[in-house]
Amino acid sequence: MNYSCTAYELKCNECGKRFGNQPLSACPDCLAPLEVAYDLEAARGVFTREAIAAGPPSIWRYAALLPIPAGHQPDLPVGFTPLIKANNLGKRIGATNLYIKNDAVCFPTLSFKDRVVSVALANAQRFGFETVGCSSTGNLANSVAAQAARLGIKACILVPAELEAAKILNTQVYGARLVRIDGNYDHVNRLCSQIADEYNWGFVNVNLRPYYAEGSKTVGYEIAEKLGWRLPDNVVVPMAGGSLIRKIRKAFQELIYLGLVEEKPVRFFGAQATGCSPISQAVKLGNDFIEPQRPNTIARSLAIGNPADGPAASQMIRATGGWAEDVSDVELVSGMQELAETEGIFTETAGGVTTAVTARLYAQGRISPDELTVACITGNGLKTTDALAGHYPEERAVRPRLADFDAYLRELDGAAEPELAAIGGIHAN
Amino acid sequence: MNYSCTAYELKCNECGKRFGNQPLSACPDCLAPLEVAYDLEAARGVFTREAIAAGPPSIWRYAALLPIPAGHQPDLPVGFTPLIKANNLGKRIGATNLYIKNDAVCFPTLSFKDRVVSVALANAQRFGFETVGCSSTGNLANSVAAQAARLGIKACILVPAELEAAKILNTQVYGARLVRIDGNYDHVNRLCSQIADEYNWGFVNVNLRPYYAEGSKTVGYEIAEKLGWRLPDNVVVPMAGGSLIRKIRKAFQELIYLGLVEEKPVRFFGAQATGCSPISQAVKLGNDFIEPQRPNTIARSLAIGNPADGPAASQMIRATGGWAEDVSDVELVSGMQELAETEGIFTETAGGVTTAVTARLYAQGRISPDELTVACITGNGLKTTDALAGHYPEERAVRPRLADFDAYLRELDGAAEPELAAIGGIHAN
Ligand SMILES: Cc1ncc(COP(=O)(O)O)c(C=O)c1O
Ligand SMILES: Cc1ncc(COP(=O)(O)O)c(C=O)c1O
Ligand SMILES: [Zn+2]
Ligand SMILES: [Zn+2]
Repeated sequence: MNYSCTAYELKCNECGKRFGNQPLSACPDCLAPLEVAYDLEAARGVFTREAIAAGPPSIWRYAALLPIPAGHQPDLPVGFTPLIKANNLGKRIGATNLYIKNDAVCFPTLSFKDRVVSVALANAQRFGFETVGCSSTGNLANSVAAQAARLGIKACILVPAELEAAKILNTQVYGARLVRIDGNYDHVNRLCSQIADEYNWGFVNVNLRPYYAEGSKTVGYEIAEKLGWRLPDNVVVPMAGGSLIRKIRKAFQELIYLGLVEEKPVRFFGAQATGCSPISQAVKLGNDFIEPQRPNTIARSLAIGNPADGPAASQMIRATGGWAEDVSDVELVSGMQELAETEGIFTETAGGVTTAVTARLYAQGRISPDELTVACITGNGLKTTDALAGHYPEERAVRPRLADFDAYLRELDGAAEPELAAIGGIHAN
Repeated sequence: MNYSCTAYELKCNECGKRFGNQPLSACPDCLAPLEVAYDLEAARGVFTREAIAAGPPSIWRYAALLPIPAGHQPDLPVGFTPLIKANNLGKRIGATNLYIKNDAVCFPTLSFKDRVVSVALANAQRFGFETVGCSSTGNLANSVAAQAARLGIKACILVPAELEAAKILNTQVYGARLVRIDGNYDHVNRLCSQIADEYNWGFVNVNLRPYYAEGSKTVGYEIAEKLGWRLPDNVVVPMAGGSLIRKIRKAFQELIYLGLVEEKPVRFFGAQATGCSPISQAVKLGNDFIEPQRPNTIARSLAIGNPADGPAASQMIRATGGWAEDVSDVELVSGMQELAETEGIFTETAGGVTTAVTARLYAQGRISPDELTVACITGNGLKTTDALAGHYPEERAVRPRLADFDAYLRELDGAAEPELAAIGGIHAN
């Protein structure tokens, strides 16, 4: 497989200044975030439905519009996750044309972060970083640790001290150095900026952020391709830093520009937990700025109180005619259960947020039942099992004999009635 | 997509008697297990490289040789998981041509059991079962619960009481009824046979077993296709009931028969934990029969002491010139870590068994370094996190300031020396 990339370089969103390619995330003049800009005209002959279909079943089928170094041989078959029709969930929440994009089974570490990390690490290698790192709410940590191990690059990963046990283990097991920081994600992130400068490390979401962020476009490409090269009417996306939701939009716009899909308006809906909802608050208030929050939610992967791409995300969501909502921790747990019970998909807290917000958007009438809507499930439930602690009490063990099993089933099925009978008995006496 | 299946029916391996299609797992005459037999000649025009390549990126691209009901519309995009070159692991264990087949990211429930369950449930529906079930060492439970939820079928699942917490939760979350049995898998399995008869339920690995087992063939098809329609020299496969390893062989033989791959000898290697190694013992002793064991290993998913397909697996492994090995619980944990550290793949205990056994087979010289060898990783590490408990002690949390981070790193990197110095100091006094 030969991967031909379109010409690209870093560009300031504000002043338009261009910076070539280097590990740099903000414009030195106006401090605005940098983005990767492509020579889209040059992509016309290369980024076609046919060329993509002939590519591998991974994000690398879209390599022509990813910022990877020329001649780069992608290492891992990341992404290309299922898009499934969610009729059962739809029935429960009043949707007739709902799809789930399922990154809970993304290779290699079960979240959409695998997409961004593989693009970032390709650039870390090109820029010659010997150590890579990240500030992470969990999933990013897992993915950097795993992919760095595979590439034989040292990794140093910083996380808020209060992270789920499974996410901690799923970082350490790859042999990465994990540093727990006594603070929340925003503290961790600030520290990482300083470390990146002092140590000359490649932090995927700090100095490599513009490259990293482009990896999320592949969620958008995959949605369109798996819908038969069509765009949906609506997309519901969980937000932490606010990057993923913006990049899905960027992907759709590129597809329209290059003629791979028909132009149509797509509305973007953001999902957060109420305990950390700076972007959804901004959307609701019609703000282009972000009021930072101190996170307090079990949706730890979304707990970014001062999101880097928050202002742009808020602006973009409103520009598309979309909306943002946030749900309580109780609601997000119900969302996790509802998705599992209806579609057989076990997602982490962030996916519970997406599911519960999606339900609310239908209930509010912001999304009509028959509109083609895609909800993005971005992580796996096995990483946040504590969120369900106490919801499934341990039943007693049954002896391995048919008579015991029969009795046990009768006991379970009759559980409600005998109790009522007993209460009745008491009253009768 | 239109799925045309080849004609097939149940057949006794011993006496050759045919039984049409029905929920039946053993020959009433000779009590031997039944298998699905296909009209392979009829498959010639249908099961071609081209037709497969034009199919969906899931096991359903191989539907022409799966026992699914005519006209069946497969529901979920199961399987088609990555096959990756494992050069780093290879370097550690002396292999230069080693691949990992990674079902740790299988959709929907992160193990190869998703393959067998989707085929079994298609047949449960065709036979009209209103409740499905299974006896399970964990992964099967997860998959039956998830896929039954999606299909809207009731599920009742029986497991040994001592199962990993994540596997219990990952069954309950889908709304399935889970019954913990006070005994090991073999007790559970015997009870399930009785329940299947009494309740007329469709047990995927009991009365639907012949159909169920065929799903594992897709691992073999995928290996061959992803190798560019070539067969490997060796395959290393974890064994519990002994079904998977046999079905990979069946897949290869079908591919040879139909001319999709060149004929060549493939040696099959089985992997077990020493604490439950009835099949590897049979192979080592050259036995066609199984000496049942009482399982005692943390590789719970492989803990079947009296494996249904054990005799056939032992016979087949030896017939191919392969071998079987078993490793201790300590070794399998090292195997989990080694695979994570080298290839960035976090597998469960069963995958630790496969990795450690693979290493041993190279060390023993049973597999030569340059032979094309595929090791089958069949489940995800997030389901058996307890196996690593205590291996990664919690480090203290660091204050979010550069100076504190610097000091912490110095502390970590210098950790070994100061201690040695201290010891030296004691001796010097
Ligand atoms: C599971 C999951 N979903 C969604 C997000 C949000 O991504 P973004 O920071 O790009 O908004 C994250 C970020 O960590 C995440 O872990
Ligand atoms: C992860 C895993 N690998 C391998 C196996 C072995 O499969 P079989 O019973 O077909 O030998 C199992 C069975 O439960 C399993 O859960
Ligand atoms: Zn600028
Ligand atoms: Zn017979």
